[in-house]
Amino acid sequence: VNPDEYRASLADGRRVFYDGELVTDVATHPKFRVAVDNVAAGYGDGERGLNSADAYKFPASSDELRARMESLTGWEPTLLMTLESLLALGTTASRMPADEAFAKYRSRIDGFVEFCKQHDRRCVPTISDAKGHRALSPAQQADPDLYTRIVEHHADGIVIRGAKLHISGAAVAHELLVMPTKRMKPGEEQWAVACAVPVGSPGVTIMNAVPLPPADEWEYHPNSSHGGLPEGFVVFDDVFVPNERVFLAGEVEHSATFAHSMGLWQRLGGAAHMAEGADRLVGLARLLAEANGVEKIPHIREKIADMIIYATLVRSGLEAAIENAVITPEGFATPDELYTNVAKYYGALNRDRMLTFIHDIAGGAILTAPLPGDLANPETRAYVDKYMPTRPGIDGEYRTRLFHAARDLTVSSAAGHHQVAMIMSGGGLFAQKLVATMHYDLAHAKQLALKAARLDPPGKG
Amino acid sequence: VNPDEYRASLADGRRVFYDGELVTDVATHPKFRVAVDNVAAGYGDGERGLNSADAYKFPASSDELRARMESLTGWEPTLLMTLESLLALGTTASRMPADEAFAKYRSRIDGFVEFCKQHDRRCVPTISDAKGHRALSPAQQADPDLYTRIVEHHADGIVIRGAKLHISGAAVAHELLVMPTKRMKPGEEQWAVACAVPVGSPGVTIMNAVPLPPADEWEYHPNSSHGGLPEGFVVFDDVFVPNERVFLAGEVEHSATFAHSMGLWQRLGGAAHMAEGADRLVGLARLLAEANGVEKIPHIREKIADMIIYATLVRSGLEAAIENAVITPEGFATPDELYTNVAKYYGALNRDRMLTFIHDIAGGAILTAPLPGDLANPETRAYVDKYMPTRPGIDGEYRTRLFHAARDLTVSSAAGHHQVAMIMSGGGLFAQKLVATMHYDLAHAKQLALKAARLDPPGKG
Amino acid sequence: VNPDEYRASLADGRRVFYDGELVTDVATHPKFRVAVDNVAAGYGDGERGLNSADAYKFPASSDELRARMESLTGWEPTLLMTLESLLALGTTASRMPADEAFAKYRSRIDGFVEFCKQHDRRCVPTISDAKGHRALSPAQQADPDLYTRIVEHHADGIVIRGAKLHISGAAVAHELLVMPTKRMKPGEEQWAVACAVPVGSPGVTIMNAVPLPPADEWEYHPNSSHGGLPEGFVVFDDVFVPNERVFLAGEVEHSATFAHSMGLWQRLGGAAHMAEGADRLVGLARLLAEANGVEKIPHIREKIADMIIYATLVRSGLEAAIENAVITPEGFATPDELYTNVAKYYGALNRDRMLTFIHDIAGGAILTAPLPGDLANPETRAYVDKYMPTRPGIDGEYRTRLFHAARDLTVSSAAGHHQVAMIMSGGGLFAQKLVATMHYDLAHAKQLALKAARLDPPGKG
Amino acid sequence: VNPDEYRASLADGRRVFYDGELVTDVATHPKFRVAVDNVAAGYGDGERGLNSADAYKFPASSDELRARMESLTGWEPTLLMTLESLLALGTTASRMPADEAFAKYRSRIDGFVEFCKQHDRRCVPTISDAKGHRALSPAQQADPDLYTRIVEHHADGIVIRGAKLHISGAAVAHELLVMPTKRMKPGEEQWAVACAVPVGSPGVTIMNAVPLPPADEWEYHPNSSHGGLPEGFVVFDDVFVPNERVFLAGEVEHSATFAHSMGLWQRLGGAAHMAEGADRLVGLARLLAEANGVEKIPHIREKIADMIIYATLVRSGLEAAIENAVITPEGFATPDELYTNVAKYYGALNRDRMLTFIHDIAGGAILTAPLPGDLANPETRAYVDKYMPTRPGIDGEYRTRLFHAARDLTVSSAAGHHQVAMIMSGGGLFAQKLVATMHYDLAHAKQLALKAARLDPPGKG
Repeated sequence: VNPDEYRASLADGRRVFYDGELVTDVATHPKFRVAVDNVAAGYGDGERGLNSADAYKFPASSDELRARMESLTGWEPTLLMTLESLLALGTTASRMPADEAFAKYRSRIDGFVEFCKQHDRRCVPTISDAKGHRALSPAQQADPDLYTRIVEHHADGIVIRGAKLHISGAAVAHELLVMPTKRMKPGEEQWAVACAVPVGSPGVTIMNAVPLPPADEWEYHPNSSHGGLPEGFVVFDDVFVPNERVFLAGEVEHSATFAHSMGLWQRLGGAAHMAEGADRLVGLARLLAEANGVEKIPHIREKIADMIIYATLVRSGLEAAIENAVITPEGFATPDELYTNVAKYYGALNRDRMLTFIHDIAGGAILTAPLPGDLANPETRAYVDKYMPTRPGIDGEYRTRLFHAARDLTVSSAAGHHQVAMIMSGGGLFAQKLVATMHYDLAHAKQLALKAARLDPPGKG
Repeated sequence: VNPDEYRASLADGRRVFYDGELVTDVATHPKFRVAVDNVAAGYGDGERGLNSADAYKFPASSDELRARMESLTGWEPTLLMTLESLLALGTTASRMPADEAFAKYRSRIDGFVEFCKQHDRRCVPTISDAKGHRALSPAQQADPDLYTRIVEHHADGIVIRGAKLHISGAAVAHELLVMPTKRMKPGEEQWAVACAVPVGSPGVTIMNAVPLPPADEWEYHPNSSHGGLPEGFVVFDDVFVPNERVFLAGEVEHSATFAHSMGLWQRLGGAAHMAEGADRLVGLARLLAEANGVEKIPHIREKIADMIIYATLVRSGLEAAIENAVITPEGFATPDELYTNVAKYYGALNRDRMLTFIHDIAGGAILTAPLPGDLANPETRAYVDKYMPTRPGIDGEYRTRLFHAARDLTVSSAAGHHQVAMIMSGGGLFAQKLVATMHYDLAHAKQLALKAARLDPPGKG
Repeated sequence: VNPDEYRASLADGRRVFYDGELVTDVATHPKFRVAVDNVAAGYGDGERGLNSADAYKFPASSDELRARMESLTGWEPTLLMTLESLLALGTTASRMPADEAFAKYRSRIDGFVEFCKQHDRRCVPTISDAKGHRALSPAQQADPDLYTRIVEHHADGIVIRGAKLHISGAAVAHELLVMPTKRMKPGEEQWAVACAVPVGSPGVTIMNAVPLPPADEWEYHPNSSHGGLPEGFVVFDDVFVPNERVFLAGEVEHSATFAHSMGLWQRLGGAAHMAEGADRLVGLARLLAEANGVEKIPHIREKIADMIIYATLVRSGLEAAIENAVITPEGFATPDELYTNVAKYYGALNRDRMLTFIHDIAGGAILTAPLPGDLANPETRAYVDKYMPTRPGIDGEYRTRLFHAARDLTVSSAAGHHQVAMIMSGGGLFAQKLVATMHYDLAHAKQLALKAARLDPPGKG
Repeated sequence: VNPDEYRASLADGRRVFYDGELVTDVATHPKFRVAVDNVAAGYGDGERGLNSADAYKFPASSDELRARMESLTGWEPTLLMTLESLLALGTTASRMPADEAFAKYRSRIDGFVEFCKQHDRRCVPTISDAKGHRALSPAQQADPDLYTRIVEHHADGIVIRGAKLHISGAAVAHELLVMPTKRMKPGEEQWAVACAVPVGSPGVTIMNAVPLPPADEWEYHPNSSHGGLPEGFVVFDDVFVPNERVFLAGEVEHSATFAHSMGLWQRLGGAAHMAEGADRLVGLARLLAEANGVEKIPHIREKIADMIIYATLVRSGLEAAIENAVITPEGFATPDELYTNVAKYYGALNRDRMLTFIHDIAGGAILTAPLPGDLANPETRAYVDKYMPTRPGIDGEYRTRLFHAARDLTVSSAAGHHQVAMIMSGGGLFAQKLVATMHYDLAHAKQLALKAARLDPPGKG
């Protein structure tokens, strides 16, 4: 598959909306074009050195897993999601019971992974349901569709209805991997559904929000003008899914495995991105300090040192998660749950302070530096050249554009969007804390404390 | 002065640029109109209940000061800056030596305050110089204009040259109050200059950045679409200032008093806005929790409680600053420096965590809620009505628009702009910490420790 | 009452244990003598300038309340507890219903306060019950005595049984003010009991823990060797309480008022002590920095500045609580609940970091400075004189003893005890957060957010 | 060497003081006996499963290093210090220049390591000098001995004078490894000295502080009564050191290598102990919550989860430091500097909050639980049995003793001592932050930021 074939593949009848308007050509629409170009670049073999094949290969050891994590921070996001999704399907299959009942699902998952590999398909996970009244179960909701469900069973497939929220990249990908949003209970069989749905399937509708700067301010936003992955609100209006793409249909006891497996890989990916992003923020802070000529002032050094410690702690957790990976019976390396969740949690909770430090180091010019047009107009450019330089080597244009970048990376709507995405990816803060707690060896910790207390465990004898 | 007179007053020949383009009519230009309308509303006597007169009256007691602080959070920003600037001039006058040399300055300050009151002028402080190489003094810079300075002395006035950065509202105000950015030393007399310059004076140029959402997304930004105060990069190209508007011209020993006084009032105003803003964020968090139906979940309650504690601590500092105000010999109440700076510092440093908590409580829909256009188009509206409601009383449109507001207040470019402004207003974090430290009674603290240690002070006998 | 009369008053038949041993003379026992001397000093009129009378006078305004809070940090602790207890009784009386049923209780409370004033009695609050199984109500416990209760009703009084834990100063005070530990429900009338019990009453037993350093290390502990208030575990074994000392006996709907009122005053007192204590820690940090010659090193300055900000924020909360005091119908000033709880919470949660900073500033010598005996023995003294001085004015003995004091105030058992007491006084962290939340004006906060969102409240029409 | 031989080895004429008293028999003195017994146990092969041989073997790979780190948390502290010291000497040797001048030092270091292994010697590092006036160099001090120095050169050795502070275990070890406290400059050759000195050498004097609870409270301190390693203030009064034990004598350019190498290994050991200690604190918190019956209360769960995250982050850093170990040319594994320092810094800075959480979870009984004597006396024991139990399985004695342990581990003098030691081990917070910063790849971070900014590095052309 080459970039143009990818672009062409989007004309599959998909029903995409932006701000109430039906988007007739995703590949060229101003709000989607940048994202499409990014995905297309992932099919090429140019400077970004992407290798789609990696997205379909499961790591077999800690070393392979580390190599994958190091490369993926350079991937475009749908390729990353494809890898995460398929790894999550693989993890799910390995966690399913060995008995006959699940053999068909395991086999279908294998087949689907192979299909995606053969056709270089981009896949996105779709998990979060509308949920309605949080205190009520799916069956108790005013509308049973508030959790995505099977509305019809046929000999050759099922029909599903519902909505899945916060689906990054849905409008520019090929496959929607539908998974239950939570553990279902007996009696909730209709909501225990996992399957793969092509984006262009009849009945699929996607509303979108797009974190792209205004078209006339792209030069002012040197980073986010190259991003803008659409966030989809995906509706399934009685969509037929053939059997070979159905991975769960009523087995409530296994309904949570998909989301848990997905969460693990998303959090690992999130931690990897936060580690890289944290290094980027450290670098940005240091460039700003140097451009302002304050990099030797003690409180500036302390702030950058605190950022370094943050960045290194996130990476530590990532390293520990990889080093302590578990090899599944199927032979692929799954990161350690405890370290993965702790790294993600710590990184997500504390990223805000990195932004505050950058703002404090940058100073007001992060908001008030002259605009690109001021650089272009000689009348105003003269003031930039006169008043924005600091010391030798730091000229007015460089410093001005560095402030633009800092603003774009930490102040702009796209920066705000990224900050929220880092917090929410793989579930919010509490979910990460909860999973971390579940995987901590509390019995060992209590044993250490009892030993220091020189006490026997209570309730013995 | 009524709103229309204010609008007309802006056609005074001012030279304003936006993105390299000369703005011929500030009052109607799309990037300035919203801000102009806000300032104009401050001249009316409509629903916002503003009372310009208050901006020119100095509080005479803690109670009057408290009343002023409570009302000003409802003021439009240039009115607030006018009050802060004139109070700072008043504070400066009261801190100037009583001797003859400064009598003329005190008298001119009184005259200027009276002039502004008579003509209902909007004033903005202009302090931050370009600064150039931070390790070098003004005289050592490659270009002496990197700090604003007096280039000519005449019998009837002075001529100044330089640039002042981060001047909020400059393009829509009347008076630029020029003050030295730092303490000048003997030999640096030419940079020890304070004066008042009408915005439309020959030689004044203002480049602008404007934190206004894109024009086609105003409904999506219900709060910031009503704001958008321009941030000015103000250049003085040999601007003549008549003597009666010159408040300092060479007296280096008093050069820092202006900025210090200004800082005090800006930090007090900043703390007052942060206290009100913190309450707003608490309210927003609670509305989001209720709309999502999660307000009783313990970790959500804990996060909102943490926000309440933050909001209340900021307000405590403000209360203490007001209650412990010092009454100057001239009879006006000046807030306590220690409490003011501590409130501002604590509020500015920790505001980031409030945003993180809101993001975590809101969840992904803060980014992915359907757009206003999706509400308008019946096809997509049907999905919003079906999938966005939660429990009785929370319908799809309300919840969707609440997410828009939350996004606007905590994720958008304008939100990022506001977050930085809260950190930087009155100087960055370190400046606030430094001033707080300077005003703390360290001798008393040491005495307490020595008493507990039952030790005499060292070095006695 | 003079100091000797106080000492004599302790020989009232009280049954006091220390480490399993019956203490026959509290006033002279080595573990209690220091505390007794402290309380006795409160009856004198010497250098500490105490004035017992203040402990029985209710403040009538914010100004009087402030004066009281400023003086009480110099009081010995049982005098402070007497004030707090009686104020809490007064607050409780003012919060009781105006109807006939409670008239007798209000009258008895008035009588008891007057009695204490007449006889200069030291009172301590006793609240925390044993509680047993936390998930069960008093009636469901294996033993009904796990919450203190009325076991017999007589014409002239009641008989109570149970235990009250964590009763500071019980063994050296005169009156135990018994209050319910929580809100009781209908059916739990026997546990809804408040009364005053003389410490020497038949049936009262007190086990004690005493935070006093070892007798041979008093010089090494210059501060804590002068403290050591015993913490009592108070048992009521069928203690008769005459009617005039019974303040609640079965009125479950009012059972929580005592503890809430007590909590308010304890938290205010706790905040006042933490504010003073925080200043002391700042002073100690600075003395250590000066003695080590590092007070100008930037990271040391930053740490001390952070401590100043902490100390000032605690004091801000205290100031705001006092300034916003409510005057009850009876005419006495009650501190604002919100500010009081926030100040206490913030101070208690973050005090740990002050200790960490002191440890970091002091360095290893806080643990390893030569001991007092090393100063006394000329052989070792020579090494102290040679190796412990730093710069002029800082001799070896001063610096050594300053480390002793720092160790005593931040490392010793007594320091640990104080740290826990600051966290737990007036209830643990969660209780303070909960009460703060209850008193916050959430409706106003939501109104601010709705206004910014330009939305009507949900569920209206 | 067996335990008795070790005890006998201490009678080598060592000059040890405690509180001004000359200790004639270290092995039996009440303040040293416990520590001596601990060290002696390290020579046995009993239940603690120690293996002295490991202390002299250098790990050759990440896996060996990990195995060593896992075992050493069970070692007695002087064995740990012996390992750390010798590894630091090894690291130093590998960092010395390859030229002839240093060949003799490398050879002597090898010889000394072999000697220690042969004779199972316990070694402690001695680094911190008295330092005097911090702003002055060694030569500028009032007394040149404030930094340990060579006062005489002889054909067969050198004579040193000075003091080394904070030397854990000095009084019960065999060898003092003297190292310069900081980088010396040309002209400071006399202070550039490293060597090994037997504790019993003529001229060596050790004053001690010992963190042991009072003898009559050992049962009340179930953990710290088994510890009590003496902290030595070591004085060298013209001590002769033969050439074969001299590892540096004037080569100022290499003076800092010893302390840096030592710091690396101490911080790794500190991080390992903090990781294990953090797990112990988590276990303690959970045991307390269970004993109090509050382990399911949400805010308690959150606090324990926060502790788990802390513990896991410290361990992450340790894992990453080991996994990224560098193998030296000599073939032994040296931990990664960045991760080691970050783990130690984060652990040391934030350990205080773990203690605060334990205090809050435990409640007041951590201070006021009945004492051991109250358990022994049937009269008071009856109250403990009646009022201290909570739910089935938690009896009064268990819960009481658990509070004793919690008090001992988090409130007692020994707990305070341990807390400070964790902060200071391997240098204070700033030193760790500084070393972390030095080893961070700032150039890579800047490159990432420039790429996102789409800017070339400044100052190019």
